[in-house]
Amino acid sequence: MNDCPLDYALNLLNGKWKLKIIYQIECAGTIRFNELQRKVDGVSNVILSKSLQELQKDKIIHRKQYDTIPPKVEYSLSDLGKEIAPALNQLSLWGEKAYSENQK
Amino acid sequence: MNDCPLDYALNLLNGKWKLKIIYQIECAGTIRFNELQRKVDGVSNVILSKSLQELQKDKIIHRKQYDTIPPKVEYSLSDLGKEIAPALNQLSLWGEKAYSENQK
Repeated sequence: MNDCPLDYALNLLNGKWKLKIIYQIECAGTIRFNELQRKVDGVSNVILSKSLQELQKDKIIHRKQYDTIPPKVEYSLSDLGKEIAPALNQLSLWGEKAYSENQK
Repeated sequence: MNDCPLDYALNLLNGKWKLKIIYQIECAGTIRFNELQRKVDGVSNVILSKSLQELQKDKIIHRKQYDTIPPKVEYSLSDLGKEIAPALNQLSLWGEKAYSENQK
């Protein structure tokens, strides 16, 4: 393993929220802010907004605004965002092992 | 994907430091505190200590103390810790893609 791409990945995904946000957008396909906040349990308004802005800047998610009244905004994963799935799956598999290990 | 094991994994690995710490211990095999701090660029004494204590409590790393003068302490990955490698590899692969995507 070369640690530079790992550092790069971890810097883009910093904190525990972003992977949880990406996971919930992936499950939903497209999702609105309020629904996303309900699914990402414990995240504040401010942190969720900031995280979504950064994920958009880093080309991991798309933000689509519909010019309705009231305006409607939907988030979805970009192709790059969708490619995080194998890493999330591996983390999830490891989570199962860690859970059973720590229950012993 | 079931989000419970993922949440469990992300809670154990919270923040960006722990995965970096695990990666450096994996590379080194066994490593002492000071050397680890040099490799995990930017981590403070306090955060590194706290992270190592938590990783030990969660059975992800081993801490071995040698009763020499001065005492010598070495850290290594547990079997559970070693099993994070596939997830780190996937994150690293994604980091390469994200890097080239964001250079466009």
